[in-house]
Amino acid sequence: MFEKKENKPTGKSPKLTTLAELGEFGLIDRLTRQVKLYHPETLKGIGDDAAVIDAGDHVILLSTDLLVEGIHFDLTYMPFKHLGYKAAVVNISDIAAMNGIPKQMTVSIAVSSRFSVEALDELYAGILLACETYKVDLVGGDTSSVAKGLTISVTITGTAQKDEVIYRNGARPGDLLCVTGDLGSAYMGLLVLEREKKVFQVNPGMQPELTGYDYQIGRQLKPEARTDIRNLLQGLGLKPTSMIDISDGLASEILHLCEQSQVGCKLFEEKIPIDSHTRELAVEYKIIPSVTALSGGDDYELLFTIQQADYEKVKEVAGITVIGHITDKSTGKWMITPDDKQVELTAQGWDGMK
Amino acid sequence: MFEKKENKPTGKSPKLTTLAELGEFGLIDRLTRQVKLYHPETLKGIGDDAAVIDAGDHVILLSTDLLVEGIHFDLTYMPFKHLGYKAAVVNISDIAAMNGIPKQMTVSIAVSSRFSVEALDELYAGILLACETYKVDLVGGDTSSVAKGLTISVTITGTAQKDEVIYRNGARPGDLLCVTGDLGSAYMGLLVLEREKKVFQVNPGMQPELTGYDYQIGRQLKPEARTDIRNLLQGLGLKPTSMIDISDGLASEILHLCEQSQVGCKLFEEKIPIDSHTRELAVEYKIIPSVTALSGGDDYELLFTIQQADYEKVKEVAGITVIGHITDKSTGKWMITPDDKQVELTAQGWDGMK
Repeated sequence: MFEKKENKPTGKSPKLTTLAELGEFGLIDRLTRQVKLYHPETLKGIGDDAAVIDAGDHVILLSTDLLVEGIHFDLTYMPFKHLGYKAAVVNISDIAAMNGIPKQMTVSIAVSSRFSVEALDELYAGILLACETYKVDLVGGDTSSVAKGLTISVTITGTAQKDEVIYRNGARPGDLLCVTGDLGSAYMGLLVLEREKKVFQVNPGMQPELTGYDYQIGRQLKPEARTDIRNLLQGLGLKPTSMIDISDGLASEILHLCEQSQVGCKLFEEKIPIDSHTRELAVEYKIIPSVTALSGGDDYELLFTIQQADYEKVKEVAGITVIGHITDKSTGKWMITPDDKQVELTAQGWDGMK
Repeated sequence: MFEKKENKPTGKSPKLTTLAELGEFGLIDRLTRQVKLYHPETLKGIGDDAAVIDAGDHVILLSTDLLVEGIHFDLTYMPFKHLGYKAAVVNISDIAAMNGIPKQMTVSIAVSSRFSVEALDELYAGILLACETYKVDLVGGDTSSVAKGLTISVTITGTAQKDEVIYRNGARPGDLLCVTGDLGSAYMGLLVLEREKKVFQVNPGMQPELTGYDYQIGRQLKPEARTDIRNLLQGLGLKPTSMIDISDGLASEILHLCEQSQVGCKLFEEKIPIDSHTRELAVEYKIIPSVTALSGGDDYELLFTIQQADYEKVKEVAGITVIGHITDKSTGKWMITPDDKQVELTAQGWDGMK
């Protein structure tokens, strides 16, 4: 056995570090710093949307995501069936982000006794609907009781030909920065749901006023993964130089891409595709519309870079928008506003001007 | 979007079913009844220690296990490093149970703010030590905060040649039932730790009295996976007809094996390998020694069946014990006591005599 150590909870010793001090990305970096790889078939470990494993004539992609009650979802407005669907989709999206085909999935749930079997039936109905929609085989999982709440852990596999895989680290200066679909609507959907929740808490007799927000609420409660983009790109004869899915907000994903590729970028605020009603809603909520895209998250669109020479291939394609370009690392990561100000990109959207 | 349904908590309607009514295995059966498989390369989905995926010239094994604080571990006596090691080992054991070679692993943790970064450092030190010991590549994961407790979700992959994989469903009447190592010690280790925890709760100044129980406590806090058995069997020129790992107690695993193989069995109580000190301890705790093996769990030894003709190959092998044989399904699943009584095997050990 190992040397004996006490399990000290936070706060009893002033030397211990709280999780909040480090943040999620800092924590992952710290915990995985010592990781060693032993198998040559592990082509890519931690650091992309999925790990890449050599399987001979093709590769296996492997990715996992946690959904935790109170952090990732709120059951007061998230029906169980939608939750199950979303838990599957956020994982399928990681395979789409590697340009792979989703194949198998495992689902584990830690669930407190406050939940009924019928609630879990609904959860699994949503998971299985996503499996049917995206043709994914549910092949395993685990269930356990837990003191409190509901935690869902999904792991997904995918396949691709070796030369089809698109990593986060292939962006080069001069490449164009592109996104699929439109951004920010899922975040506005969340704000509408949160507002109605507050109204309901004050007056439980009130019916929620959700009509007119169908698109935004749908994007939040029933997101879809862009597995269709693989075929679209293939049809265009286009291989992006890098790709990532937009789960945490455009700003955060651009930063991941730039960091992994060791490059900088210029993003043009006015180019960010935002639904016109979402724009209006944002203004109504006193939010700069681009912030819903930059910091909102839950869009599950794809962000990718292409060589400048490929511009002709995408410029007329509906649902793909060029939003900026890649620069040398030394020039930094900037957003250009319509009045030509440069705003530094940060994971929270931005935090400085110059 | 889907039709709207309320998220009803248990108990508000008399028609809802509590999780306790169904139990873990009943719940898994119910939730996965509707599962459809879409990909021909999914050779085996739910129902074995791991899923089996065709990868051309070999197969990929995929398995996942949850460890939940308060259910699977108690941090008052489980150091974080041991917990990390064990979380990895219980998954590696599933690959060993398929006769595969463990390869890649993802680890997700949902952790409350009561834990320090240093505690998670220790947890990952244990995970990475297991990765080094068993040559497994940590390739991904996710972290999230959670309202309460610590939940660890590990997913593991392995590889094997297609004809090397050993399933749960291959046992045939006449086959011999074998186990590796000895059983029940991990459970006695748990009882010792629980006893010392109670003493400590009454008198926090007391030092725990754990000397003399090293083997039992080691089996509980630092179990190992039997990845060595693959080579041992290969060396003996022996391919078991079915195999499963012993995580929930011998009785439960025999029942899984018999159910999947559609057979019955006769298990001889006196043949069950139990460490002599564990036997003494069991008697001291007023437990029938075989119950520690039948119902204890956490042994992570392998249970397998071989054709009778292969008996010569195992009879002199240290660390493999023949404990019974497989019968027709119609004859039932029985344990024979030393005084020749037949006891029906149940997941709790036994529940009837005849």
